[in-house]
Amino acid sequence: ADISSAKYSASCFPSTVGLRDLDTFPRRHLGPRPEDVSEMLKVVEAPDIETFVSNALPPKVLVKRALNIDPPQGLSESAMLRKLKEIASKNKVLRSYIGKGYYGTHMPAVIQRNIMENPAWYTSYTPYQAEVSQGRLEALLTFQTVIVDLTGLPVANASLLDEGTAAAEAMIMSFHHTRGKKRTFIVDKNTHEQTIAVIKSRANTLGLNLVVADLLSPEGISTLKASAKDLCGALVSYPGDNGEIPRITALQQIADTVHDSKGLFAVDADLLSLTLMHPPSTFGADIALGSAQRFGVPMGFGGPHAAFFAVREELKRKMPGRLVGISTDRLGKPALRLALQTREQHIRREKATSNICTAQALLANVAAAYAVYHGPEGLRDIARRVHGLAALLARAVEKNSSHKLLGDGIYFDTLRIQLSGESADQLMNRAVNTYGINLFKVNDSTVQLSLDETVTEKDLADLAELFTGNREIPDGVTDFPEFPPEWQRKDSILTNSVFHEHHSETAMLRFLYSLQQKDIALTTSMISLGSCTMKLNGTVEMLPITWPEFADLHPFVPRDQAQGYLQLIDELEHDLQQITGFAKTTLMPNSGAQGEYTGLSVIRQYHHHRGEPQRNVVLIPVSAHGTNPASAAMAGFKVVPVKCLENGSLDMADMEKQAKKNKDNLAAFMITYPTTYGLFEPGIRDAIDLTHKYGGQVYMDGANMNAQVGLTSPADLGADVCHLNLHKTFCIPHGGGGPGVGPICVAEHLKGFLPKHPLAETSNHDTTNAIDPVSSGPFGSASVLPISYAYIKLMGGENIPFSSVTAILNANYMLYRLKDAYKIQFIGSDDFKYCGHEFILDLRPFKKYHIEAIDVAKRLQDYGFHAPTMAFPIPDTLMVEPTESENLDELNRFVDSLLSIREEIRAVEEGKSEGLVLKNSPHPIEDLLQDDTVWSKRGYTREQAAYPLPYLKNFKTWPTVSRVDDVYGDTHLLCTCPPVSAYAE
Amino acid sequence: ADISSAKYSASCFPSTVGLRDLDTFPRRHLGPRPEDVSEMLKVVEAPDIETFVSNALPPKVLVKRALNIDPPQGLSESAMLRKLKEIASKNKVLRSYIGKGYYGTHMPAVIQRNIMENPAWYTSYTPYQAEVSQGRLEALLTFQTVIVDLTGLPVANASLLDEGTAAAEAMIMSFHHTRGKKRTFIVDKNTHEQTIAVIKSRANTLGLNLVVADLLSPEGISTLKASAKDLCGALVSYPGDNGEIPRITALQQIADTVHDSKGLFAVDADLLSLTLMHPPSTFGADIALGSAQRFGVPMGFGGPHAAFFAVREELKRKMPGRLVGISTDRLGKPALRLALQTREQHIRREKATSNICTAQALLANVAAAYAVYHGPEGLRDIARRVHGLAALLARAVEKNSSHKLLGDGIYFDTLRIQLSGESADQLMNRAVNTYGINLFKVNDSTVQLSLDETVTEKDLADLAELFTGNREIPDGVTDFPEFPPEWQRKDSILTNSVFHEHHSETAMLRFLYSLQQKDIALTTSMISLGSCTMKLNGTVEMLPITWPEFADLHPFVPRDQAQGYLQLIDELEHDLQQITGFAKTTLMPNSGAQGEYTGLSVIRQYHHHRGEPQRNVVLIPVSAHGTNPASAAMAGFKVVPVKCLENGSLDMADMEKQAKKNKDNLAAFMITYPTTYGLFEPGIRDAIDLTHKYGGQVYMDGANMNAQVGLTSPADLGADVCHLNLHKTFCIPHGGGGPGVGPICVAEHLKGFLPKHPLAETSNHDTTNAIDPVSSGPFGSASVLPISYAYIKLMGGENIPFSSVTAILNANYMLYRLKDAYKIQFIGSDDFKYCGHEFILDLRPFKKYHIEAIDVAKRLQDYGFHAPTMAFPIPDTLMVEPTESENLDELNRFVDSLLSIREEIRAVEEGKSEGLVLKNSPHPIEDLLQDDTVWSKRGYTREQAAYPLPYLKNFKTWPTVSRVDDVYGDTHLLCTCPPVSAYAE
Ligand SMILES: Cc1ncc(COP(=O)(O)O)c(C=O)c1O
Ligand SMILES: Cc1ncc(COP(=O)(O)O)c(C=O)c1O
Ligand SMILES: O=C([O-])O
Repeated sequence: ADISSAKYSASCFPSTVGLRDLDTFPRRHLGPRPEDVSEMLKVVEAPDIETFVSNALPPKVLVKRALNIDPPQGLSESAMLRKLKEIASKNKVLRSYIGKGYYGTHMPAVIQRNIMENPAWYTSYTPYQAEVSQGRLEALLTFQTVIVDLTGLPVANASLLDEGTAAAEAMIMSFHHTRGKKRTFIVDKNTHEQTIAVIKSRANTLGLNLVVADLLSPEGISTLKASAKDLCGALVSYPGDNGEIPRITALQQIADTVHDSKGLFAVDADLLSLTLMHPPSTFGADIALGSAQRFGVPMGFGGPHAAFFAVREELKRKMPGRLVGISTDRLGKPALRLALQTREQHIRREKATSNICTAQALLANVAAAYAVYHGPEGLRDIARRVHGLAALLARAVEKNSSHKLLGDGIYFDTLRIQLSGESADQLMNRAVNTYGINLFKVNDSTVQLSLDETVTEKDLADLAELFTGNREIPDGVTDFPEFPPEWQRKDSILTNSVFHEHHSETAMLRFLYSLQQKDIALTTSMISLGSCTMKLNGTVEMLPITWPEFADLHPFVPRDQAQGYLQLIDELEHDLQQITGFAKTTLMPNSGAQGEYTGLSVIRQYHHHRGEPQRNVVLIPVSAHGTNPASAAMAGFKVVPVKCLENGSLDMADMEKQAKKNKDNLAAFMITYPTTYGLFEPGIRDAIDLTHKYGGQVYMDGANMNAQVGLTSPADLGADVCHLNLHKTFCIPHGGGGPGVGPICVAEHLKGFLPKHPLAETSNHDTTNAIDPVSSGPFGSASVLPISYAYIKLMGGENIPFSSVTAILNANYMLYRLKDAYKIQFIGSDDFKYCGHEFILDLRPFKKYHIEAIDVAKRLQDYGFHAPTMAFPIPDTLMVEPTESENLDELNRFVDSLLSIREEIRAVEEGKSEGLVLKNSPHPIEDLLQDDTVWSKRGYTREQAAYPLPYLKNFKTWPTVSRVDDVYGDTHLLCTCPPVSAYAE
Repeated sequence: ADISSAKYSASCFPSTVGLRDLDTFPRRHLGPRPEDVSEMLKVVEAPDIETFVSNALPPKVLVKRALNIDPPQGLSESAMLRKLKEIASKNKVLRSYIGKGYYGTHMPAVIQRNIMENPAWYTSYTPYQAEVSQGRLEALLTFQTVIVDLTGLPVANASLLDEGTAAAEAMIMSFHHTRGKKRTFIVDKNTHEQTIAVIKSRANTLGLNLVVADLLSPEGISTLKASAKDLCGALVSYPGDNGEIPRITALQQIADTVHDSKGLFAVDADLLSLTLMHPPSTFGADIALGSAQRFGVPMGFGGPHAAFFAVREELKRKMPGRLVGISTDRLGKPALRLALQTREQHIRREKATSNICTAQALLANVAAAYAVYHGPEGLRDIARRVHGLAALLARAVEKNSSHKLLGDGIYFDTLRIQLSGESADQLMNRAVNTYGINLFKVNDSTVQLSLDETVTEKDLADLAELFTGNREIPDGVTDFPEFPPEWQRKDSILTNSVFHEHHSETAMLRFLYSLQQKDIALTTSMISLGSCTMKLNGTVEMLPITWPEFADLHPFVPRDQAQGYLQLIDELEHDLQQITGFAKTTLMPNSGAQGEYTGLSVIRQYHHHRGEPQRNVVLIPVSAHGTNPASAAMAGFKVVPVKCLENGSLDMADMEKQAKKNKDNLAAFMITYPTTYGLFEPGIRDAIDLTHKYGGQVYMDGANMNAQVGLTSPADLGADVCHLNLHKTFCIPHGGGGPGVGPICVAEHLKGFLPKHPLAETSNHDTTNAIDPVSSGPFGSASVLPISYAYIKLMGGENIPFSSVTAILNANYMLYRLKDAYKIQFIGSDDFKYCGHEFILDLRPFKKYHIEAIDVAKRLQDYGFHAPTMAFPIPDTLMVEPTESENLDELNRFVDSLLSIREEIRAVEEGKSEGLVLKNSPHPIEDLLQDDTVWSKRGYTREQAAYPLPYLKNFKTWPTVSRVDDVYGDTHLLCTCPPVSAYAE
């Protein structure tokens, strides 16, 4: 591949005019213009791109692989949209009543346009920097409040990846609750197949004993009792997969039985039905979980959707996932933040409650907004209507046909119908061909269907006609069925004022804007979070995902209705394989951490398959991201850390020592490349060879893939499997903490182990040795895949390497401008002249002046910037990753800010009062407007606090609270919306 | 119709669940919930809605007409979208090379999503309140700069309605330039037919002598010379309608000849070609005008698009339309504002330079953003490629066919081809059926086509094959044609930094956001501008307008390709006729003022047709909006004012006197209803009868139609014609000053006079007596019509009256809460217990304390609010119109703010220093952060200035400059982007 200055100009910034479309994308995606690149190259002391790249990457690493990606030059923006339209048109959008965890829903247009399609919402990161994230934090707190109110359990997290993994987390939590002593978990058989399959996958890797039983039968209780000694927990679906609603007394009996054996009782619930039905808290549930999809999030061929997870008070510190809590700020004002972060992997590593990192923040926010917009009455009306329509159809079937309704007549939205006179296949064929309707086939003579919010009067008549030959609904108007009163909860739900104030569209719009304006996102300024790759999420990549052809497909539709998706997935897998050098891909994992888990499970399966099940040790450098050890633990491995040297590179001696020591049970070596230190480790091939020598497989964490594309690849370096974060390298927006897509690509010998799915074919067509699914959807978060597809096609095989080149150049340009003012970790030594695509600012030298990394991070907010990654991978540092999409002006603004902060630190060193500005940062307007009794004592001026550089007077995003008190928040945990009075002045 | 409290609850806020869809719209559109309405009714001392309404409207006025609008209950949001999809699918989107002022263009996705589809941009009003509008003002200034740079003329306005009216404005300006003494205007015949037709329409009404001549021939110059004594100006198209580019020497000769007779020389130019061609300034143009459509704005079946208009320095104070200028604020910081407002109708009335009020701000902003994103090189590349493709096609036709290219081979994008062996109809049939291509038919053997930015290599091959049978383009790759160097301008264009800094998408996105965040729009708070009806622009109404089926249709496509549009137009006209009570509608006018002009032209034609051409007097109440007299003047009428009484109602004695006095030439009476004073004038029927008695027609200005819908109607009251502002009553967003749609509806006897169009059929199928077109597009701003269509269908015939009821109730609720604190004009007397949908706060009592209306208006910004309408219709007042979409909370916040300001005024009355906060308002953050040497002298605290009410601490939109100095701006006029240095600190 041609990686040169000449190519950069000619190919990414073509200046000749000809037949080709002019609306090319690389010049929009890449920040620096060719003339900027020349200037930047001077600063990094390189004559041209080719020289720079060959100095930045070790010779053994730089392979400049030719990427066979069609088209080489990339598609123009308009051509790409035409192509995606053509692909989309191959998806057939019928009415799907398949249900099973996925339901039609209306995303209110005001939410679609102002959250889903709004870069101010979708480009933000996980709200680590609370002071510039109060808007999203409030939205997530609202989500938690919805879940708490509807489940009746007092603590809920801010989303999990999907229903299946949430159920698996319930099992794992139950297991940990017994301190790992009891290994049997029992799932009621009337649970969605894919949920059971995902639980099974996790049970397998953790070596738990998963039992599927009919818990609602007397035998079920006997089974529970029989397992009592080893029982860690049980899970029941409410309603069940077949639509039946278990009796409260029966559920209470299960709960009691489980509790008798000190296990936890988990309930997989349907969120909409919970507006009507008794909450799981009423019958002893310890955990309630499920999908929030039908709160306004399109089915999207399987995802992304937010799962919810709520627990009893005593379990909150064991809960997986992110939790938003209310604390106070330095001035005593209420302020939101991520609570109990100490539970998470970046602290607890392999002992973390789970490996979840990226979750489904954007979708949780949509679901929260849906609840806010409808309010309790609106939601209950929707639920009542869904139930009523199902009951009317049941009535029609009973009165006007000879089919038989199965079950005891107590259901929410789902009917199971045993056919007479027609086979399931025959009826389903008629359904598709005559009415454009999909049903679920239970067996040759039984079908099942779930009604939803989007069903119209005409839809119901179609269904009636399909089953009865008669469009009439007996007494449809005069006698609309009521949800059986004895099954109805009687309490008030969603009583907080937020659910009562925004029911007109104008009010909703303003509410959403008031939140948006509090936050930093890529719409306001660079977010240089190391290891996060906050690059452009191009609009043209984003447009297609809300097209109905992508948004409105049920994941289990017949394949002929999903030809567009299947083509897109096929092409995307091909392109990712070109980029990684691997042979096969699964797009199933919904996050990087899930990718890690999947890849490790594949490795585990491989060893088992080869008859080496004892291989259970994974070597992981100490510098690794917390998800690595956490995922390894989840996949049933023992984690052995490998040291790093002073100069940042891997301690090869320790590596050799550990590999040798564990040679009989070495399963894998897990490494990020460039390493988490931002270094193109020269010894990478040696480490890989070593691993192979001792029988291990090499797992490459692809979080830093944005530095590799077209320059080198996991396969070229010798790895066996890698995951990619499509939400980093491949432009899926972070959404404030999700969605994510973490596909894994594997070498030829691992192909056969990629996951299968019980209800649909996956990318792995040969399922003989396949592992169980890792996600509920066969293709995970399918509906956001067009984004990555579009990005790759827009750049083209020849240009996409320049994303990596520019990312590396941007980082080094900053580094070179900063290196006299700050100590930069590792770079400048003989070993490393350049960093990769990110670098680490060492702030430890300032500790003696009591200046901490957090002071610099918070002070950056006063300069309008989001802080870089703090304290990862090294405490008291900031890791800066600019990405290729930032232009020279923005890089300079950020560098100038850091240099200006350096002078403020110098003031501290010199004992000048101006230095106090750091400790008091950030400065929200409210603080700045305090009167002179306060400010005369500050030691610096308001002007200095607010406008340390001149560009800030033209535009600045202000923090809305002052520094948030983390300790207070964790000790006074409050994780639902407070009553209005709490916020009042 | 049922107008009652019971109906409000049951129909707009249904609480029963049944078969009907639940996603109904009235409860989203209307602010107050039924329980709020009860509370509000108490405040206005009415027991229920029915009583309230019958006290608010005089008995003779209240007719509660039943609206035969289908469906009566309204469509649900989802059903409406389905219906519009179905309608849209009847439009066939082919490749259109018809040209003639409308060209394919790519709206960059980042601009589509972040301006066109962004409520923060599209819901704002004309930037009257400069301090909270700096973002849009900067965008418009950028538009002006683009026009100035490309035309070479030093002053450009911030858009006109379309190319045709811009050309007509050039004529009118020329006429005024001769102080009305010379009446001949000559237009070159090589000008788009519709442009000539619109000029003709204006010439007719003004009694000017329009000559169409071949100005580029020697005879043309003779014609000019022969007309010298009466010649006020001439217009030439550059390039011409047939694609030819006139020679500079020839143009200069025309300019010289026109100037010899003291006339003005206007050039109708193509903006894209101006990036390559010599600017009109080089050959003596006094005026340059044209359409900015192809700078990223979709064709949209004819509009809305921004027209541009630029003039020589000496003409700037005569220029029609809005002009953004740079002034300074109270603290000496540069600040933008609308300049030279004294030219406009609200000051100059019938003597105004034109009647233009609403223009095309949103589309001008899109065009400006397009220029910013592409920069000068990008724009020139697009132009070069468009030309090159045309030249390649010409080459193919010449080499590979026996057709003949007409013209001298100097063209930009348009070719005229004389066919051999095939008729135009035959070829065009093949074009449509085989290639999906539309061309323009010149005559039986000649076709014309214009290429554009969106043409792809394949499109060109299709065209080549269509004309030559051969897909090959001779030497297409090796010899891409260059625009002839001798025709090329050599100067640098768009040198300002704004055109060089935002070429990556990330940079562009942030630029747009930095502008957005400076402004108040409906996304932040209520905009209670009286007479402007700033109601909800529902998202679901907005979604369809960017669908390709509506966006990408050329206005002159064959009717069978526009069946969707035609159906929508037909249904919309029907519904508007139901609402107004009239017989027929034209949607052609692009604004309210254009509607006035059209309606008056129709009345003029009616009188002429009846043989009473002497009827040339229009009676207009003194309180009327400035556009009324200005439009009347434009339509060739003499304006006679009618007095109003102390109590606000029409002075019927004066009315009778004036009508009688002018009885022989009384043409019309023009009135707004409720009147511009916000009053349901009880004498309206008498005034109308009087007018009819004296042979006049009654024109109702529909600006206040939002108070009438379903309660009464122009036809019920006896009027003959009215215009509607679809951008007020019918939910088209104001876009920061346009687009607008100002249809007129007429009684049966006026039907036949509605406008025709030279290139397409309009709503008036019988053109015998039709007036000439008032807009370039046969249906004006067709692509925004789906918004009004959707609104009406979503509300339904039975619910839409509640928009009016609620608008009136909201206004009266505020009035009742305010009336003890402020003097309210007119209300409270025996005559008027209630206002209509707006009311007037009289601030004259505070003048003696040197408090002016502007102080209250600017101080409201500190409370986060946009001021109500200032000084219209009465000086030193504020006119408040809340609309029905504001809910009780927001009404209360606004009222509380005004009450709090009343206390601040009281401080002034009592001589307390806190009152100084009014004069210094608004307070941008920068002012608040000045140090204590400033603030210790202010007399009030920063806290008081910034947070006078507690809710402001949670959310507030801050003004970004302090009070703007209007006088300085007008005396130091600067209307293009300043060089960077001017803004630097
Ligand atoms: C190095 C590394 N590995 C893994 C992950 C986990 O990815 P995800 O958040 O998608 O689970 C991250 C995320 O920040 C990371 O930086
Ligand atoms: C009473 C009245 N008439 C006419 C108009 C003119 O409408 P437009 O701005 O669409 O030209 C307005 C606009 O504000 C108005 O308030
Ligand atoms: O509304 C859209 O951004 O498509």
